[in-house]
Amino acid sequence: MKDVISYLNDNKKRFLGELLDLIKIPSISSDKIFSDDCKKCALILEKEMKRIGLENVRQINAIDSPLVYGEWLKAPGKPTILIYGHYDVMPARKEDGWDHEPFEPFVSEGYIRGRGASDDKGQLYTYVKAIEAHLAVKKRLPVNVKVILEGGEESTSAGFSAFLQDTKNRELLKCDVVAVSDGEWFRKDTPAVETGLRGIIYFEIRIRGPKTDLHSGLYGGAVANPLSVLSRVLGSVQNEDGRINIPGFYDDVVELTESERKDFERLQFDEEDFFKRAGVKGEWGDERYTVLERLWARPTFEVHGLWGGYTGEGSKTLIPARGGAKVSMRLVANQDPEKIEKLFENYVRKICPPSVDLEIKVLGKGYPVLVNSDNVYIRKAREVYEKVFDRKSALMRSGGSIPVISLLSRYLNVPVALLNLGHPDAHSHGPNEKFPLEQFEKGMQFVAHVLNVWGGK
Amino acid sequence: MKDVISYLNDNKKRFLGELLDLIKIPSISSDKIFSDDCKKCALILEKEMKRIGLENVRQINAIDSPLVYGEWLKAPGKPTILIYGHYDVMPARKEDGWDHEPFEPFVSEGYIRGRGASDDKGQLYTYVKAIEAHLAVKKRLPVNVKVILEGGEESTSAGFSAFLQDTKNRELLKCDVVAVSDGEWFRKDTPAVETGLRGIIYFEIRIRGPKTDLHSGLYGGAVANPLSVLSRVLGSVQNEDGRINIPGFYDDVVELTESERKDFERLQFDEEDFFKRAGVKGEWGDERYTVLERLWARPTFEVHGLWGGYTGEGSKTLIPARGGAKVSMRLVANQDPEKIEKLFENYVRKICPPSVDLEIKVLGKGYPVLVNSDNVYIRKAREVYEKVFDRKSALMRSGGSIPVISLLSRYLNVPVALLNLGHPDAHSHGPNEKFPLEQFEKGMQFVAHVLNVWGGK
Repeated sequence: MKDVISYLNDNKKRFLGELLDLIKIPSISSDKIFSDDCKKCALILEKEMKRIGLENVRQINAIDSPLVYGEWLKAPGKPTILIYGHYDVMPARKEDGWDHEPFEPFVSEGYIRGRGASDDKGQLYTYVKAIEAHLAVKKRLPVNVKVILEGGEESTSAGFSAFLQDTKNRELLKCDVVAVSDGEWFRKDTPAVETGLRGIIYFEIRIRGPKTDLHSGLYGGAVANPLSVLSRVLGSVQNEDGRINIPGFYDDVVELTESERKDFERLQFDEEDFFKRAGVKGEWGDERYTVLERLWARPTFEVHGLWGGYTGEGSKTLIPARGGAKVSMRLVANQDPEKIEKLFENYVRKICPPSVDLEIKVLGKGYPVLVNSDNVYIRKAREVYEKVFDRKSALMRSGGSIPVISLLSRYLNVPVALLNLGHPDAHSHGPNEKFPLEQFEKGMQFVAHVLNVWGGK
Repeated sequence: MKDVISYLNDNKKRFLGELLDLIKIPSISSDKIFSDDCKKCALILEKEMKRIGLENVRQINAIDSPLVYGEWLKAPGKPTILIYGHYDVMPARKEDGWDHEPFEPFVSEGYIRGRGASDDKGQLYTYVKAIEAHLAVKKRLPVNVKVILEGGEESTSAGFSAFLQDTKNRELLKCDVVAVSDGEWFRKDTPAVETGLRGIIYFEIRIRGPKTDLHSGLYGGAVANPLSVLSRVLGSVQNEDGRINIPGFYDDVVELTESERKDFERLQFDEEDFFKRAGVKGEWGDERYTVLERLWARPTFEVHGLWGGYTGEGSKTLIPARGGAKVSMRLVANQDPEKIEKLFENYVRKICPPSVDLEIKVLGKGYPVLVNSDNVYIRKAREVYEKVFDRKSALMRSGGSIPVISLLSRYLNVPVALLNLGHPDAHSHGPNEKFPLEQFEKGMQFVAHVLNVWGGK
């Protein structure tokens, strides 16, 4: 492996430049005005995958952004690894609180800075470059590899999910294990394999009342106010401590066992540091659970956006014609987003008075994931973490959701190895996203080694 | 009076042109970018009041827009009438649902159309022109007159309220009766004097949580979400039927007597037409009260604006750093806005978790008004309504608030005659505001006659 690692070291400047070029493209999948940027990103990745020697490389149309597929299957008898990544990113504008333009990436203080640096362009690119190194030096890979990259993950993978509905496509992606790096270490000093992800169901709610805005003095008290109704609907979903009031909501939640609670405790999660990083004055939530338990094993309800009525300077006394909200629920094993969708909709419809119109749209959903970590792929990957990064690795869960991971695991029926490379302070969905340059450089070595050990070397 | 009325008829084209010029000025008091327009409006009115022969005409600086004052006090032994009006208007943009540009007024189908046509430029201008007619024809007025116009009424009269704090200024405005036309008839066929107005207290609420937006997967469940908190706070203020849950809120509410309820009933309020005009599918509110009772004699809680988080296309899974709302409560006799302010603030502070910052700002307040209608001014004005408009007049209340009216009535300790001239479909705070041309023309005659009969003629 020395020559492969040397190749990675010798070319790391070029690789960084390529990654920065990728980050420059505002491939925001949730907003159609950026769809050309998503396409541009797909094209660059397609060309690069061809250039490094992957085969059958092609773009596959999807209802959101194109998928990019490539493979190398010339290692008979060796396992087939499906590498998944996403080239789309979360929305970002400087005025959201960034210290710099989110799509003008640069390196400073040891960090690659820019939207997508960690989530997921930086992490997925370690795979592309590890493959390049193997193929350049050895003219072969130690395992069979299929690479599938999507451009809709940050807007709930609608295209890739639809793609996976087709059994022919599942056949194309058939493999022995799925490898994904799209998350963060437990601590800066603790590499971690993720074994749990929360599911999600994301709604957009619109409430329409009077045809036009009305004078709140002349109509107030006899006409339902869409924003008051919206507040009442959203405000009643959750108690002050975060418990959700929807009947049946907790029915399928798998409670943590005492031994799982002890495993969590053993990680010595630094709550103080967590809240400091969060930039809040203190904790919040259901006190029957520790902070880590709340994050990893309890469902949530969040309001992501609210709009409606008068928001300018000063006062305006109106009953607004309409208002809306974006909300989501994080789900845990074994909650079913389809079932929760119905429970939520029934609950909301009951609260809405008949004189307003209610529209509920599902913008995305994903099942929760709970991986059995007792398999050779995860065990060996943990050894590589310890070798490359010289730090003890851990098993962890995440409060986040990668809906597509649950689909891959359900449809392909193979283990998913979630081999995180990001740092806990990646700010992956907020302003000032960053990815340590060291994680990028050692990450490429890590992937190169993982492919090697999975090939039985 | 024939010659005065002839003068009004002979000049009505010019008067209409002057009014349209006034409406063209976007004198929106709630938004500072229009403060020059407010000043322009004040200047035009000052010049016009000088031109028609009022005396001591001048602008008086106020913390919002200038007040315009003028007087004619050469009728010894006659009562002194304080005429109040406001030249500022509610915000309006075509995209709010107007069929035309709100500040490009015109006449069609018998209506003067534009923001401020009815509220209050059209109505206040009937006084200016009635005074002009008297002075032009008779070289005198039948009563002593003081005119005070303000430019901050739609943003809760902050400047005029401050002005009235000073006893010297109350001395300047000393009078026997206050005359105001800033409201609407009970029905198109029923001229009405208003005897009740609701009070109001208007709040802006801002909630700040994490320093930056956070990933709702990685932090959700352990960090308070400002928008979820905001929904919970606002949603809990009010029951599904509009009853307000704040302890002590109803303590000072004067319940309607059986005889008042019968007076309301006798007006034969057309509920069907009301909800049709409101553009809603049906009624809403506290079913223990009729619709008219809810509007005129019951307090409310309204959410006027909500903002925060992600409101673009698609989904974004964040815990937003902050969010806010504009809300108000309409109050009825004898609720005290100062007391309600404290009750509300205490209530909200109790619900907000300690890990978020809460800021509550009062943007305006006004006491409810309940006028004793048994006085010579109101009785005589009702006779003039019947003479000029040839329709039976009524006493009514309004669900709206004119905070300054309660101040005038409290500080000057005289009856307030609320002599409405607008039509019920004026849309005075919404899109497509309008004022019937007939109401403008007959309104000028009405005011000319009222001044005359109040002078004992």
